[in-house]
Amino acid sequence: MKITIIGAGNVAWHLAQALQKAGHTIVQVYSRTLSHAEDLASKVNAIPVSEFSAVHADTDMLIFSVKDDALPACIDALAGHDLFAVHTSGTVPLRLLSTHFSRSGVLYPLQTFSKNRTLDFRQVPLFIESAGAGTGEQLSDVAHTISDKVAEADSEKRKWIHLSAVFASNFSNYLYTVAADLLKEQQLPFEVLLPLIRETAQKLSTLSPEEAQTGPAIRGDQRTIDAHLQLLQGHEQWKTIYELFSRQIAAYRET
Amino acid sequence: MKITIIGAGNVAWHLAQALQKAGHTIVQVYSRTLSHAEDLASKVNAIPVSEFSAVHADTDMLIFSVKDDALPACIDALAGHDLFAVHTSGTVPLRLLSTHFSRSGVLYPLQTFSKNRTLDFRQVPLFIESAGAGTGEQLSDVAHTISDKVAEADSEKRKWIHLSAVFASNFSNYLYTVAADLLKEQQLPFEVLLPLIRETAQKLSTLSPEEAQTGPAIRGDQRTIDAHLQLLQGHEQWKTIYELFSRQIAAYRET
Repeated sequence: MKITIIGAGNVAWHLAQALQKAGHTIVQVYSRTLSHAEDLASKVNAIPVSEFSAVHADTDMLIFSVKDDALPACIDALAGHDLFAVHTSGTVPLRLLSTHFSRSGVLYPLQTFSKNRTLDFRQVPLFIESAGAGTGEQLSDVAHTISDKVAEADSEKRKWIHLSAVFASNFSNYLYTVAADLLKEQQLPFEVLLPLIRETAQKLSTLSPEEAQTGPAIRGDQRTIDAHLQLLQGHEQWKTIYELFSRQIAAYRET
Repeated sequence: MKITIIGAGNVAWHLAQALQKAGHTIVQVYSRTLSHAEDLASKVNAIPVSEFSAVHADTDMLIFSVKDDALPACIDALAGHDLFAVHTSGTVPLRLLSTHFSRSGVLYPLQTFSKNRTLDFRQVPLFIESAGAGTGEQLSDVAHTISDKVAEADSEKRKWIHLSAVFASNFSNYLYTVAADLLKEQQLPFEVLLPLIRETAQKLSTLSPEEAQTGPAIRGDQRTIDAHLQLLQGHEQWKTIYELFSRQIAAYRET
């Protein structure tokens, strides 16, 4: 299939390469920053463009993989083309595309992507949704060429999945950043925490997160909590997190 | 070595079994709740006791593995014995023991332990500290019989390591609980998030948490943030977390 990628961020970066490796032809990569388009285009043997007027219609599928803020403007700019238009956003409803394109779909990869991190795309869960004649089968076929974990989810379900992912992944990662900064201030290496962080994630293969909860707040260990709040004097942001989480975990324990 | 375990919680549970497997003799297991002492004692072929007066002195090492709140009372109750006394707390200074016992130490395992979850204790980082003649070598020897990752850390360093672990592990796990609850409300299975949670942890083997950060807040994607806050109406606790983290991540981006 001939595919055009609109966007060159983290998701576009991994998705375009997975599609190309699966045998699809990436025709063009658009980014409003030409160097970003060039970086990705060079990886997938595509033509980089930085003007919407340069995006041509000789393609089968247009995949919008830009941040939600930028999506409406990108769609408006390319809405004249009679193409199968797909976006990759967790939160944006399919309707945003289906009102502009007779064939439209969503291909939402539930994963955290960074350009400098390689991963096995076949293990990435893909949630799909589509509108228009023949689109269901076509999008499912494309999704299966790159992932073993394809499932359907409508726009309503998808936005809840995305929201939960922000808590489970983006916010957890920020907690790792706080931990790293705390250790750095004491000239201690962040690496000491890696076995703990991995086990915290791995536990969930056999325990629910509720069962897996450990630490001073769930034990009701006020002596430790007080000592930690004392250490956090002068780090008001982190202290706010500590108090908030300890309170919510304790409340959870009592339900 | 003959070892007596004071406590039967998650840490005592895993530590006692690791010590017994390594060839040490667990003499007695104390818990103020006899059934808890019995549960662990039956695993390590020890005698369960629930009265401090029943803890006898025919042992080489006394390991206190109780919550910090309970530690002072346990130490007071057993302070008459001339034994090598060790505790497993991240936050409590060695001094709390060394003022009562001529030989004292700390054996702090940096890991999240749940009774229903087995793990490879040899991969658990152990931070040790001691006071008194010959204690350094003896504690190091014992630690090496159960773990490949033994390091020294004084009470000051250890408390920062413990604090950072609460952020990286206990608080992350609470975020998994929030995500699970959000999905449950929508009749969606928590398992969809497992590849994402694992990758979020695994990324740290090649990226710093700062480099690994993804999501709407770090992208400055206000449209998604607003949509998520809208979804969280009626879940004020989770909304508070969402706003706090989005604000702190955005601030981090700008530094």
